[in-house]
Amino acid sequence: MVVKVYGPHCASAKRVLVCLVEKKIEFEVVPVNVLEGEHKDPEYLKLQPFGTVPVIKDGDYTLYESRAIMRYYAEKYRSQGVELLGKTIEEKGLVEQWLEVEAHNFHPSAYNLTCHVLCPTLLGGSSPDPKVIEESEAKLVKVFNIYEERLSKNKYLAGDFFSLADISHLPFMDYVVNNMGKDYLIKDKKHVSAWWNDISSRPSWNKVLELYKPPI
Amino acid sequence: MVVKVYGPHCASAKRVLVCLVEKKIEFEVVPVNVLEGEHKDPEYLKLQPFGTVPVIKDGDYTLYESRAIMRYYAEKYRSQGVELLGKTIEEKGLVEQWLEVEAHNFHPSAYNLTCHVLCPTLLGGSSPDPKVIEESEAKLVKVFNIYEERLSKNKYLAGDFFSLADISHLPFMDYVVNNMGKDYLIKDKKHVSAWWNDISSRPSWNKVLELYKPPI
Repeated sequence: MVVKVYGPHCASAKRVLVCLVEKKIEFEVVPVNVLEGEHKDPEYLKLQPFGTVPVIKDGDYTLYESRAIMRYYAEKYRSQGVELLGKTIEEKGLVEQWLEVEAHNFHPSAYNLTCHVLCPTLLGGSSPDPKVIEESEAKLVKVFNIYEERLSKNKYLAGDFFSLADISHLPFMDYVVNNMGKDYLIKDKKHVSAWWNDISSRPSWNKVLELYKPPI
Repeated sequence: MVVKVYGPHCASAKRVLVCLVEKKIEFEVVPVNVLEGEHKDPEYLKLQPFGTVPVIKDGDYTLYESRAIMRYYAEKYRSQGVELLGKTIEEKGLVEQWLEVEAHNFHPSAYNLTCHVLCPTLLGGSSPDPKVIEESEAKLVKVFNIYEERLSKNKYLAGDFFSLADISHLPFMDYVVNNMGKDYLIKDKKHVSAWWNDISSRPSWNKVLELYKPPI
């Protein structure tokens, strides 16, 4: 059964796609034009009632929320492709911890910057707010200071192994560092820069980035 | 080894405590007075660099982020106490999905209400904003409408079994429904009300609530 991934061009769907490539899981994509509001269509809302991307369909099984989908496949195909959950239950705990850090500490500020700098149409009619931009950058600096300390001791966030926690950062780090040109936020941080160069050089990420251009 | 839970009086720590009680795992608590800023003390920041509660220490192992800690113990002691991750990998996927829904759809609005209605000291000097309160309530209504549909088909969020996804809602649902008296948000929703009555009646939750009064 081939996994169907809805909304491959959107940033959060790219977490799922990279995970599937790393795990050598076959998939096909179903485009969802979010700029034309297709994620709010009644048919789509039957799959994802909150009206966000991505969703996957795998036979009769439907699942949404990108980080949940990654966990599902990383566990279901644990011995296939790259191990993304660590080897021990303690390592897996740390993967979970850094996935949560990504979701609650990194993502909100990176998402705010995406809306206010890169894609004001996401603001639903409001204008970009320089104060939000300034505050989001300041928050990211604090987050990256903690990452710098962490990455001075471990090659990756959860330890000396690549994991879902690293994958989860890829799409919005790419927006911040590349699409917005805000590489100055990490340039003076030796370990964060090395980590970013490492994870953003992975063939899985570059394949996904090349195949599915951002909608914005 | 007894698990040490830091900050038991705080809402997010209660997720962890309920999980430990359900899994019959012995623990002790270490109070952290967040109203006096103890979560920003240098010693505490060595455990949790982002300065939030809870953290656990289990021998030499330290873990933070409440939902990550719950996952760790639910998996480590899978066959002990109540099964909180579902029986199959597909059920577990749905537990993950609804944990993410709680974190990204329910929690931000419930947390905003907590700050603006219950504990303005969390606003760091700003005044409660009636517009934030109104918008947060409106968002929660939309979320509960989707929960109502879901819970009309399943007794609990992830399926017909109690799970981490339900536990994760307890502390902030309690603030919204009980401490703020906003039960009108769910009163006309038969299935959400029945679910809330069910999960908030569990002995684990009532034990935690009785032992560790909120700091606010």
